[in-house]
Amino acid sequence: MPNALTELKARLAQVDDLEGAKHLLGWDQQVNMPPGGAEARAQHIATLSSLAHALFVANETGELLESASAETGELPYDSDDASLVRVTRREFEKMRRVPEELVAERAHAFALAFSAWEKARAQSDFASFKPHQERIVELAIAYAEALGYDAHPYDALLDRFEPEMTSAQVAKLFDQMKARIVPLVQAIVDRGEPVDDCFLHQEYADGPQWEFGQLVLAKMGFDFQRGRMDRSTHPFTQGISPDDVRLTTRILPERLLSGLFAVIHEGGHALYEQGLPPTLGRSKLRSGASYGVHESQSRLWENLVARSQPFWQHFLPHLRRLFPQQLDGVDVDGFFRAVNRVEPSFIRVEADEATYNLHIFMRFELELDLVARRLEVADLPAAWNAKMEAYLGITPPDDRRGVLQDVHWSSGFIGYFPTYALGNLLAAQIFAQARAAIQDLDRQIAGGALDDLLAWLRENVHRHGKKFTPLELVERITGGQIAADPFLDYLETKLSEIYRL
Amino acid sequence: MPNALTELKARLAQVDDLEGAKHLLGWDQQVNMPPGGAEARAQHIATLSSLAHALFVANETGELLESASAETGELPYDSDDASLVRVTRREFEKMRRVPEELVAERAHAFALAFSAWEKARAQSDFASFKPHQERIVELAIAYAEALGYDAHPYDALLDRFEPEMTSAQVAKLFDQMKARIVPLVQAIVDRGEPVDDCFLHQEYADGPQWEFGQLVLAKMGFDFQRGRMDRSTHPFTQGISPDDVRLTTRILPERLLSGLFAVIHEGGHALYEQGLPPTLGRSKLRSGASYGVHESQSRLWENLVARSQPFWQHFLPHLRRLFPQQLDGVDVDGFFRAVNRVEPSFIRVEADEATYNLHIFMRFELELDLVARRLEVADLPAAWNAKMEAYLGITPPDDRRGVLQDVHWSSGFIGYFPTYALGNLLAAQIFAQARAAIQDLDRQIAGGALDDLLAWLRENVHRHGKKFTPLELVERITGGQIAADPFLDYLETKLSEIYRL
Repeated sequence: MPNALTELKARLAQVDDLEGAKHLLGWDQQVNMPPGGAEARAQHIATLSSLAHALFVANETGELLESASAETGELPYDSDDASLVRVTRREFEKMRRVPEELVAERAHAFALAFSAWEKARAQSDFASFKPHQERIVELAIAYAEALGYDAHPYDALLDRFEPEMTSAQVAKLFDQMKARIVPLVQAIVDRGEPVDDCFLHQEYADGPQWEFGQLVLAKMGFDFQRGRMDRSTHPFTQGISPDDVRLTTRILPERLLSGLFAVIHEGGHALYEQGLPPTLGRSKLRSGASYGVHESQSRLWENLVARSQPFWQHFLPHLRRLFPQQLDGVDVDGFFRAVNRVEPSFIRVEADEATYNLHIFMRFELELDLVARRLEVADLPAAWNAKMEAYLGITPPDDRRGVLQDVHWSSGFIGYFPTYALGNLLAAQIFAQARAAIQDLDRQIAGGALDDLLAWLRENVHRHGKKFTPLELVERITGGQIAADPFLDYLETKLSEIYRL
Repeated sequence: MPNALTELKARLAQVDDLEGAKHLLGWDQQVNMPPGGAEARAQHIATLSSLAHALFVANETGELLESASAETGELPYDSDDASLVRVTRREFEKMRRVPEELVAERAHAFALAFSAWEKARAQSDFASFKPHQERIVELAIAYAEALGYDAHPYDALLDRFEPEMTSAQVAKLFDQMKARIVPLVQAIVDRGEPVDDCFLHQEYADGPQWEFGQLVLAKMGFDFQRGRMDRSTHPFTQGISPDDVRLTTRILPERLLSGLFAVIHEGGHALYEQGLPPTLGRSKLRSGASYGVHESQSRLWENLVARSQPFWQHFLPHLRRLFPQQLDGVDVDGFFRAVNRVEPSFIRVEADEATYNLHIFMRFELELDLVARRLEVADLPAAWNAKMEAYLGITPPDDRRGVLQDVHWSSGFIGYFPTYALGNLLAAQIFAQARAAIQDLDRQIAGGALDDLLAWLRENVHRHGKKFTPLELVERITGGQIAADPFLDYLETKLSEIYRL
């Protein structure tokens, strides 16, 4: 007679298999699917979603959780089995409140919205996307109502990405960030001496860009036997399983940094996924702790590592070998400064480390207003542009470079954006600990040796999967809470030096 | 209150969605999946298979079928709804006899066997594949026992691919084929005047081969908005949905015909899939009538159309434009003769139209023996080689070019091979009807106009999906039964002329 925990694991494995299959369907949708496939794909994803949901929230799961909870009662809090029961239970209590029809409806609506968004964005045509956006907001509100919340419906949505954080906590951290980032950006703009990055404004051929991306990924420790790199309109990473992790990039010949940092950013996500240990089984534990923690891994590699001087000491010669003409006479200091150029711009994913956060604040505020029905979707493009003007002092020339630029809403991800800024904070906190533990880290990076850093991240972040909430994980790593100061200190120091403030 | 038929359709749509998702997982496994992904992919496919099976064979499906049967009792036999109930019911009665565990076990074993086969084939190492092959045979026998049969366990397996045909019927048709094909091949070999195809033994670059494949596909009427073409070790076609149909080819610079005819062959399958009409809904009706009928479509395009002189009247100039040097001085007659060269060879998928069938006969006989436990897997390579010697007069130099060459067994497809030869027979029967209906067909083909032919196939074959059994469909099209003579007449006529027999 198998015990309840064993039965529970078999059940969760099936749910996890459906999720894994769904991840492949989602990846394929963005990488390979012919246009005609959109409608059927939406149906396939909707069916997988509703079957996974039904299997997960069934009464049998609840009963197994009860019994497994008793069976694991004596185990330490951080043991795999106790964590599995604890984390699954929390998820079960939330998700059983959501009716299966709503799950299928959401999955179906989002899959269609994604295809509509792709077209609308290409043509900068918000009107054609508006009905989808309206549906998305309505479904988000219905979802929040089903999940339940204390203070604000947004909290229910945020919790899906950042377990046990509230919009009030986020707002408080964002206020601290604003208080130092807004004047910092202002000081840089006022100084009126932009960093020279004119060598970037040349044609960088596709082939060598691709090759360099693969080279950096390999150096970071990405295992190509257990993953792959492709192209898509919007770069992303998808773990089909921890042994099949796929990242995408987009390569633009006229914008070297876009594809380059996309690869490193997604590479950070991908290393996290490849680092989830088999011991956590096919379950909800075998995923990132939260979207913010996931983002901390991509940001850490993209910014703390790859926007540092030591990194380019090692990699610039490689890049120069691939682009000898374009990078003729560019030295490490010049390149380092160029990749840290601060300048208000339209596109979030191509924003610098400082202004990036301003893009997040405005999205957070717009989402709060949409979900509280204080903002109509019809007014969203105007509201977007007004926020851009307020935070960044610029107005998008069209919706393609404005309200239509991000994939998230079309995928139903309302409540997701704050995790990007939280990721920035966590990256700085985590990197500070890694630096303390690896004493010659800068020297290692300058030598192209990134293994110790990866091993430290594996040990302190990756191997725990979703066993701990983000707040628990931060406490285990730093002994304290999520805090804005380490990131703000790092940012001010670096940029003050570059801009001689 | 929805009626039973409506409820039944909703249920079957979910089953169909799971099948569609599985098709994508299978396609990806052969086209994109990194090696590490194999184990999780096997689990994902197994879970989707067992959930689809459970949903399909549930008592609720049976009850809905009962009621829907009453609701549709007055409808004509060939109406969509009556056919849906009739065909689904037949399938339900069969499949409910198969335990869910066996379904998952099979799916899991085959997914692993596929990866093992890929490695074993590359290294010509049957020993490493032997345990998988043994498992496959055991699972085939268990599957046959679960499904039930009258005369031979093989009948249960064959029925999965060719509904309502028996191994005795197949054996009878194959005997008729052998009686004329064996002496035909012998006469060609004895004549000792092989067709000159020396211009094929040159290097044909990958890029232009790819381009030509796309050109032919487009001319055939393949809709690239609802499908795509990729590369894989073993060419295949997979319909994720009728609006997302994917075929693959392999391009070998030293073997022009291999990739070329693979594209046309798979293109024939793909046109069938793209021609399944939306009116048949997300159900088991919306698929090919059988594997044999599916193969008739690929064979029809590959052999009856693309191994004809008119076809090359139109396409040779295009091919010559891409390979001016290699095809310098080659005329239509010379090319036509070269693509119809008959010669015993090791690899089934590259065999000519005549010897191809001999490859099938021997596989059919080996499978019958395996399933009847008259042949041990350990003795399979030797048995294979003995059959090759008997039928084709040659012995494979290694297992890569022998028993390991085909993907089918590793995918659990025992009982599938006969459908290839049946496809040859059906292709000839169907093409004869098309020729009678389209009076200037040869002239059209010689002008590169293939639309009338496709329209005829759409009308007479594709649009029916799986509404009719292969025997019913043949009767609708030809007014008679599956017969060997039309194919044998066609083959003897063409080859006697080429070889001046």
